[in-house]
Amino acid sequence: MTEEALRAAFAGARVTIAGGLGFIGSNLARRLGEFGAEVLAVDALLPDLGGNRYNLDGARGRVAIEIADLRETDAIPFVEGREYLFNLAGQTSHQGSMDAPFDDLDLNCRVALRLLDTCRKVAPDIAVVFASTRQVYGKPHYLPVDERHPLAPVDVNGIHKLAAEAYHTLYREVYGIKSSVLRLTNTYGPRMRIKDGHQSFLGAWLRAVLEGAPFEVWEGEQLRDLTYVDDAVDALLLAAAVSEAEGGVFNIGGGRRVTLKRLADAVIIANGAGDYTIEPFPAARKRIDIGDYHADDRLFRRVTGWKPRVALKDGLARTLDYYRGNLEPYL
Amino acid sequence: MTEEALRAAFAGARVTIAGGLGFIGSNLARRLGEFGAEVLAVDALLPDLGGNRYNLDGARGRVAIEIADLRETDAIPFVEGREYLFNLAGQTSHQGSMDAPFDDLDLNCRVALRLLDTCRKVAPDIAVVFASTRQVYGKPHYLPVDERHPLAPVDVNGIHKLAAEAYHTLYREVYGIKSSVLRLTNTYGPRMRIKDGHQSFLGAWLRAVLEGAPFEVWEGEQLRDLTYVDDAVDALLLAAAVSEAEGGVFNIGGGRRVTLKRLADAVIIANGAGDYTIEPFPAARKRIDIGDYHADDRLFRRVTGWKPRVALKDGLARTLDYYRGNLEPYL
Repeated sequence: MTEEALRAAFAGARVTIAGGLGFIGSNLARRLGEFGAEVLAVDALLPDLGGNRYNLDGARGRVAIEIADLRETDAIPFVEGREYLFNLAGQTSHQGSMDAPFDDLDLNCRVALRLLDTCRKVAPDIAVVFASTRQVYGKPHYLPVDERHPLAPVDVNGIHKLAAEAYHTLYREVYGIKSSVLRLTNTYGPRMRIKDGHQSFLGAWLRAVLEGAPFEVWEGEQLRDLTYVDDAVDALLLAAAVSEAEGGVFNIGGGRRVTLKRLADAVIIANGAGDYTIEPFPAARKRIDIGDYHADDRLFRRVTGWKPRVALKDGLARTLDYYRGNLEPYL
Repeated sequence: MTEEALRAAFAGARVTIAGGLGFIGSNLARRLGEFGAEVLAVDALLPDLGGNRYNLDGARGRVAIEIADLRETDAIPFVEGREYLFNLAGQTSHQGSMDAPFDDLDLNCRVALRLLDTCRKVAPDIAVVFASTRQVYGKPHYLPVDERHPLAPVDVNGIHKLAAEAYHTLYREVYGIKSSVLRLTNTYGPRMRIKDGHQSFLGAWLRAVLEGAPFEVWEGEQLRDLTYVDDAVDALLLAAAVSEAEGGVFNIGGGRRVTLKRLADAVIIANGAGDYTIEPFPAARKRIDIGDYHADDRLFRRVTGWKPRVALKDGLARTLDYYRGNLEPYL
């Protein structure tokens, strides 16, 4: 689908975004606002997660915000009468899920189940897109990882995201709820949490270079692929647009794979200055580390025509540019 | 291991059984009591589940009972200072999990995570055995199903049991907690819930023939294998005994596979009388039905030497015999 076709598909659509003040959720909300959709961004603004009121500052179009904790709040007002639900709520920190596994259970399983089960009851025609994670695969047995790779998560977050994915597949098969699951890998861009490494190691790196401080790279040889947030937003919109005919579970990758060390170099080049040290993995992190990962996302490309449009160096430059003008709200 | 070696392994051992007033839990508690173990049976006695005070009536040896709901209660008193924990608590009804998915989430995920996380904190040397289910596989792609079969549960219960399994694997790998997971199939025998079909369709059949009423067989050609409860108890004890060296995830099967119709015939022969009708699957059940299943349990047999000892006709005869003398407490 072209940008124009996407715009036409969502113009006037009633869309709810759970986690709508978060990193990806807010970028999605802004884009949908520009498309002329009627957006409701729901967010709990929990301190350790990615929600930030500033993320929707100045958003164009009809973008409403509701602060609500879906672990406890009835979800009916947020899904009844809506055409699309994007679930980008949840806890994403791997180490955080090990430190607070019950919070992760509620934030990922309970919230996803509540949203879906409410859709079943009051909005059975809604299209639901759930943001999952490469973490459901655990340590890759082969690269690139496709959707047939065994599922063996190595942290609590991966276990719960996998359960939440399975709810979506189940509710599609048993109740006919149109649903898709996107297994995201490292997404980056404007509005990500950079205060610390809770959302991604890259957030902490970006803050460091912006503040002129050195950052730590663990080991450095590990392979990753990264998705610029605008490309991730494209993927979410496309998944929703085709979900009636083509629901399912899809990997989302990015462009070229890079080692962490090359990524660190790219950050410094994009910033024009910076410094890092190579450090061994902290023991607690090493135990839940997955090693190299990059995604085979050909299935999603084939089904939707999606492809990433923003190269890593451009994405990093745009991201740093954003924070140079908007640093304070993210510290 | 011989029966004598098992007895020696558990004599004097401090053992906690979550779900200890339930079907399998109580049979395990009674056996451990006879072995001279110091058994603590913890049970919430929730009305729709398998717990029944009568199940431990007259149990020999040191078998203590604690009524506690592990969704809400601190688990420390039940695991601190214990050598073995058998987790047989939880919801097992497939349709029940669809009707009340949040209860299933708490009863299966939250309780398993609470027990394990408490072990990590106060009893890191404990051996934990978790009773899971064949339901984690979903609809079999091939028969018999071995442990490498893809995991694609087709009901909420299967999703949550899979998450609970994954906690055990994770806590073994990350924290060194000795754990094993047994994927049980249809277990039957004395002390199973026969009041209704909540625990197993076979419970409802047994009640019917005991009361001289006809029962319903859905379709009838579906394949299953059944495990007599004493054989399942053997498997749990063996898994615990070898868990330090041989933790893991194992299928438990039974003897020969049978069609439901042949099983129904066997029930009537064992009872000496009875009648059934063949009915189509109710629509709600059909949607979550897995079709044929029987287990490849060679891995567990190889690792532990386990094999089932009670043939179906003998198991059914013993089961019916038990209820003839003890019917009232199960109605």
